Amino acid sequence: MRTGVLKMSVKRKQFPVELKDVEITGGLIGQRAEKNAKISIADQYRKCLKTGRIDAIRLKWKAGQPDKPHQFWDSDVAKWVEAAAYTLMKHKNSKLAAQLEDVVTLFIQSQQPEGYINSYIMAVEPEYRWKNLQNGHELYTAGHIIEAAVAYYQYCGNDRFLKAACRFGDYIAKIFGPGKDQIKGYPGHQEIELALVKLYRTTKNPKYLELAKFFLDRRGTQPSYFKQEAANLAPNQINPITSQHNYLHVQAHKPVREQHTAVGHAVRACYMYGAMADVAAETGDSSLFSACRRLFKNISENRMYITGGIGSSQYSEAFTCNYNLPNMNGYAETCAAVALVFFAHRMLQIDPDSKYADVMERALYNNVLAGVSLAGNTYFYANLLKVVPAAVDFPNHGSIHSKRQNWMDCACCPSNYSRLISSLGGYIYTSARQGPLYIHLYTPSKVELKIGRTPVRLEQQTDYPWDGKIIISVTPAEPVTFSLMLRVPQWCENWRLKVNGIEQTNVAVKKGYILLRRQWLAGDAVELTLEMPVQRIVSHPDVDENVGKIALQRGPLVYCLEECDNPANVHAISLPTNAEFKTRFDKALLGGCVVIETSGFAPDKAGWSGRLYQPAAIESQHPIKVKAVPYFLWCNRKPGNMTVWINEA
Amino acid sequence: MRTGVLKMSVKRKQFPVELKDVEITGGLIGQRAEKNAKISIADQYRKCLKTGRIDAIRLKWKAGQPDKPHQFWDSDVAKWVEAAAYTLMKHKNSKLAAQLEDVVTLFIQSQQPEGYINSYIMAVEPEYRWKNLQNGHELYTAGHIIEAAVAYYQYCGNDRFLKAACRFGDYIAKIFGPGKDQIKGYPGHQEIELALVKLYRTTKNPKYLELAKFFLDRRGTQPSYFKQEAANLAPNQINPITSQHNYLHVQAHKPVREQHTAVGHAVRACYMYGAMADVAAETGDSSLFSACRRLFKNISENRMYITGGIGSSQYSEAFTCNYNLPNMNGYAETCAAVALVFFAHRMLQIDPDSKYADVMERALYNNVLAGVSLAGNTYFYANLLKVVPAAVDFPNHGSIHSKRQNWMDCACCPSNYSRLISSLGGYIYTSARQGPLYIHLYTPSKVELKIGRTPVRLEQQTDYPWDGKIIISVTPAEPVTFSLMLRVPQWCENWRLKVNGIEQTNVAVKKGYILLRRQWLAGDAVELTLEMPVQRIVSHPDVDENVGKIALQRGPLVYCLEECDNPANVHAISLPTNAEFKTRFDKALLGGCVVIETSGFAPDKAGWSGRLYQPAAIESQHPIKVKAVPYFLWCNRKPGNMTVWINEA
Repeated sequence: MRTGVLKMSVKRKQFPVELKDVEITGGLIGQRAEKNAKISIADQYRKCLKTGRIDAIRLKWKAGQPDKPHQFWDSDVAKWVEAAAYTLMKHKNSKLAAQLEDVVTLFIQSQQPEGYINSYIMAVEPEYRWKNLQNGHELYTAGHIIEAAVAYYQYCGNDRFLKAACRFGDYIAKIFGPGKDQIKGYPGHQEIELALVKLYRTTKNPKYLELAKFFLDRRGTQPSYFKQEAANLAPNQINPITSQHNYLHVQAHKPVREQHTAVGHAVRACYMYGAMADVAAETGDSSLFSACRRLFKNISENRMYITGGIGSSQYSEAFTCNYNLPNMNGYAETCAAVALVFFAHRMLQIDPDSKYADVMERALYNNVLAGVSLAGNTYFYANLLKVVPAAVDFPNHGSIHSKRQNWMDCACCPSNYSRLISSLGGYIYTSARQGPLYIHLYTPSKVELKIGRTPVRLEQQTDYPWDGKIIISVTPAEPVTFSLMLRVPQWCENWRLKVNGIEQTNVAVKKGYILLRRQWLAGDAVELTLEMPVQRIVSHPDVDENVGKIALQRGPLVYCLEECDNPANVHAISLPTNAEFKTRFDKALLGGCVVIETSGFAPDKAGWSGRLYQPAAIESQHPIKVKAVPYFLWCNRKPGNMTVWINEA
Repeated sequence: MRTGVLKMSVKRKQFPVELKDVEITGGLIGQRAEKNAKISIADQYRKCLKTGRIDAIRLKWKAGQPDKPHQFWDSDVAKWVEAAAYTLMKHKNSKLAAQLEDVVTLFIQSQQPEGYINSYIMAVEPEYRWKNLQNGHELYTAGHIIEAAVAYYQYCGNDRFLKAACRFGDYIAKIFGPGKDQIKGYPGHQEIELALVKLYRTTKNPKYLELAKFFLDRRGTQPSYFKQEAANLAPNQINPITSQHNYLHVQAHKPVREQHTAVGHAVRACYMYGAMADVAAETGDSSLFSACRRLFKNISENRMYITGGIGSSQYSEAFTCNYNLPNMNGYAETCAAVALVFFAHRMLQIDPDSKYADVMERALYNNVLAGVSLAGNTYFYANLLKVVPAAVDFPNHGSIHSKRQNWMDCACCPSNYSRLISSLGGYIYTSARQGPLYIHLYTPSKVELKIGRTPVRLEQQTDYPWDGKIIISVTPAEPVTFSLMLRVPQWCENWRLKVNGIEQTNVAVKKGYILLRRQWLAGDAVELTLEMPVQRIVSHPDVDENVGKIALQRGPLVYCLEECDNPANVHAISLPTNAEFKTRFDKALLGGCVVIETSGFAPDKAGWSGRLYQPAAIESQHPIKVKAVPYFLWCNRKPGNMTVWINEA
């Protein structure tokens, strides 16, 4: 029991470096950001336009016309606005800039005199405004519109959309609250809480923080608002999954401070947990932060795939129970991994402990990156860890998720990926006014910031995640003393550190970060070498599907076996415990990646003709060459079988 | 290629002994039949009554009243009639007899002047009679009503229900057929084809056989009847699973003679395949029988659980693709195993090959028997081979099937189980006029039949399936020569045979049956001993979930590990390849059963606190005692974890 931690004051001790001050200078993350800027964002705009999502904001849709707006649509476009704004901060693109201006104008023009913005309710169901908080998504889309407005303001400094967002926020704050004539409800899909904290941090207007806190405080209290609301709803307005009796699904089963396990819809959950951390940080609310710590612990120790995926129920995109992590019949939605990155990043600012950055890195490099194809224009909604042959006569959810789709009716994931990738600069470094300066993620990049009043320039040169050597050059404008904190990833068992060429043998490590406190001079160079062997990872014995299996991991990357790389059914391949692994960087493969090669066994099929079950004596196997590629790169060649968890021989 | 088999003439070579001539004298099947007679049939009557299924046949339901009839309901009651009639042939029960008379009277009274019987259409949707063959169940319920009428006639000889069934059949034969004004359609849920062959065999009226053949011949032809029909249906009349484009689900994607793989809804499929075998037998249609052989082969060699369960898609109760047999996220509906027994039994009559009886026995002793609790009044719809802890926050199909239910809205399985169990006497023996006489199933029983003109009495004494020794006494009224055929089960690797105490060393075996041709004299005794060790069974390497796992089987029984019998998570237990198995009959356990005891390993959990993934070096395990019970008896104590497939250490 680290009681000292429990007693720590709840406030942000670390602050992300502003996006404009960070430059990603290459590497895998740089490649992805580039592809996102050049392909994915344009692809999403085109698909939003083609499906009517953008035109819907004109509020001209009439019953009987095609492309009937959907209650999620504003959020798809708003997340695209966010992604476009972040991207334009780093990548010049006049066409994209013009599209962004047009879409922002549409949102502003769609605002009603009282401040309301929602294309679906205005055009399709005006009579249901605020009438179906549990099953509708009005406050959810409001949150995304507010986040989009903040991003647009950060990008160009023009406050036209921010002002609209404030009017919208002011209107919501008038409608919702503890007052006699105010609605005491809260959203069925959390998101606005995160957005309101952003709006508060941008405008300094405490009203928005109070409203975020109100939504969290009300949630799960008795008598249940959702129950009262449902009494006035027709059956066809009730979603069978978020139905009035399923408060768990929307985390409204208990007051948020009393929630001990991560339950229900995983995206809703992690958006809420992130907002709880934000509100705790701004208000010093230790009971709220304790809940965040418990929930993070439950996720990371009991309910998370090795890829950082969460929400293992295919039925409801939701958390299930501890250790229930089905590989094929699972889910691990791209959005849920994005939400986990958000949550971990917020925890890290209050409690700079590498356990949060480890989860952030795991989810980012494996589940999030897998969500989009190498070409940048097809998308996984669910990110399964095992895929079997999809047959025409096999109409289950599994086969839908065995290859990336061009688009989805519920297209939440593509622009969620894009807004995260385009803002990743904000996740690499955090600092406090006088330091310490933390490096959470290793990737080629430059950052400029001030420690006290001294401008400091810091640059990372590395091939991470393909190689574990990281060279950090520190260039303060004048000598300045501060602590530089370098994360030692949880996966790393051996590391070495040099400062200005001198091996450091007695290095302090604080909560998973190497602590280097010194007076930094221009030209100082730190060289961190993280040993990055192939690791055979096992999972907790109660993860029933993985008993007798291992996963291959190298650095932060989880590997998988794909059908196209292997001479046998990947689900039947086994690796002996003494398998030797060779690694090599194949620059021609999948945009360039490290592949793992080894020897294993495949079962003989002789003796099985016409038989499905036989006495065990029949079993025999033959040696084969086995090749593994990073999971996040799977399904960029021929669709086929894939597995992360591999049988032990 | 056994070309001789392909060329064989298609006709019934073997005929089931009539139910009235067989007496089951005890043993496991006897216990089950007794429980069925005393508990299950009464339980199903009570639940049919309580849920409105019986009152619905009065046709008095009006819109707005509770207990709105459902399109399946007549079939639930009709299968109960069948079960009650078969049971009453063997078990006196005046209360049940009176209930049966009442229900039969209700069905007869509900018949319309033209012959139509259907409580749902008459009361709820009279305007849709014959308008929605694909998604409705009119011809399906008609089939069950006809089967019920035949069973009632067999039971008491009174033809009042049979006459009604004939009037109904005559009316259907007028409505459906190749004529100008006749409907060219066929059922969306097959069943009537089996029933029409029974009606033909009972009445000798060829019209019914022709109609069965018409339905089979029309099925899957182009232009598709279902497509034409759907054009006139409102969207709310289309079931998303059997939707107009999903002809595979209802086996209407191709003409039946061109179907090569078992696809779609498993119950529909096997009812149809059984009817195809019946029609082939009656008409000598070799192309139809070839299709049956291919489909049976595909099921038994590629698409069947070790329990004899079929239909592995939880999404649609359907076949998927070869080797796709998920243990937890599977299905294996009780009705589908019943339907597979029907199919195998019909194949056996045309081609007396033990491969059909092996599948029949596997499905019966494992999947079918598992469908009902030991107490006889709760029911499994799906019969999963692996169950994990069901959590309150885990709302998927899996948890629904982790314990038996009192009843289901779609309650097809309970009375399907009961009609099969109450008619099992008809599955043990078959014969031809001059012999041979086949014994397909071993169970304590007596049969009386004629070989030629000679009455023969035959008795089996055995503890099968708990023990492999079977003593058969043959008592002809006078000496008579015929072949007695004794099945050597596929699971049996060693057996011994004595005739009148003399060991037989040079015994002919024909298609899996010991052939004993001799002049039989009163007092002749045959003693067959099937060695019944515990077998470690593996499955085909392409069954991905079972790689590295074994199942324990003893005789025809598949075993499982239940949580309540074992000191560790059953999914993490492993058995070494040299595990020694001890068996003992525990008369106090689960109504008396043979348990398997052995030693295995369970993983240590020390070192796992707070961790979900670790390098493989952490793994260690400790020895434990392991106990397995027959799968069909699982979930009769505390609900909990269960697995059929066990890790190999």
